[in-house]
Amino acid sequence: MTDSTPPVPVPPVPAGAVDDPPDLAAFKRAFRRHAAGVAAITSLKADGTPVGFTATSLASLAAVPPLATFNMARTASSWPAVAWNEHVIIHMLGVRNRGLAEKLSGPAEQRFVGAHWHPGPYGIPVLEGVTSWMVARIIERVSVHNNAVVVVQIEGGGFGEDDEALIYHERTYRTPGTTVTGDPLP
Amino acid sequence: MTDSTPPVPVPPVPAGAVDDPPDLAAFKRAFRRHAAGVAAITSLKADGTPVGFTATSLASLAAVPPLATFNMARTASSWPAVAWNEHVIIHMLGVRNRGLAEKLSGPAEQRFVGAHWHPGPYGIPVLEGVTSWMVARIIERVSVHNNAVVVVQIEGGGFGEDDEALIYHERTYRTPGTTVTGDPLP
Repeated sequence: MTDSTPPVPVPPVPAGAVDDPPDLAAFKRAFRRHAAGVAAITSLKADGTPVGFTATSLASLAAVPPLATFNMARTASSWPAVAWNEHVIIHMLGVRNRGLAEKLSGPAEQRFVGAHWHPGPYGIPVLEGVTSWMVARIIERVSVHNNAVVVVQIEGGGFGEDDEALIYHERTYRTPGTTVTGDPLP
Repeated sequence: MTDSTPPVPVPPVPAGAVDDPPDLAAFKRAFRRHAAGVAAITSLKADGTPVGFTATSLASLAAVPPLATFNMARTASSWPAVAWNEHVIIHMLGVRNRGLAEKLSGPAEQRFVGAHWHPGPYGIPVLEGVTSWMVARIIERVSVHNNAVVVVQIEGGGFGEDDEALIYHERTYRTPGTTVTGDPLP
């Protein structure tokens, strides 16, 4: 069956993406319609330099044992730390942490300038004021082209004041909105 | 450093989770504070039976080439299809698709009873009324304990009417809310 039924052609490429091949235009357009929670991941380089970045790719993999995944480019400024260190700390961001999200996605050399963190387990930065954070041991780094899928097992963590989860959607930080109701499908 | 600084102890286990070990309690509590977009993934078993499920783990891995990941249990009813088939179709769900999300996360034998889908590329179900869908070729299945991280490359897709992205947070379907503003960190 895989050889007899070709994929449906991609619709006309939207304006502004005329240089993208059709699969890339479809991909970008589809992911713009996806929303994601925002996490911030920190670690330490071999020389003790703290690194960190925001991630919208954090996902649960299993509860027993507690496993999660996140994705990153192996060209990212934080990759050398994630490639070397056995541990990272994963922070869940609330709506009050938008400034923190911007700090951790801004210029790499500015991300730990300030009083918004302290050294935590294994010396890895714990960000102040987050809703929760988890100490995670890296159990697998899967390289795919120039990217990595990082699989971690949660070893512990801490909690802050509760808050609504910070969401990233259509290139904007958002709150969670109202509950969606309506009739189920017949 | 990894041997000298033990992880910070997990706070007292919340009520209702007294049977969970501390790492599991921390994990569950942390992920309750994370929000996620909702996707629906379909495929076909070797005997032609359609399968599908909702996923909150869909994440972009790279844009060039267009790569994404999702996670699932290898005990899931859809796993035999994902293990065998070279392709899946990934659908982004909008707020109007809440009923579809419930159908695709309900009893497995009921998920394709109805007129909410049609056979698409490679015979794989395309769900009606979604905001976008992507034909995805599976390029890696990473087994971790009894779970799998599935890495796919997007080959094409289609689009429906625009809608706000469907979000799952605190065990409830939600809309995206207001834009979060505020001062950046100093």
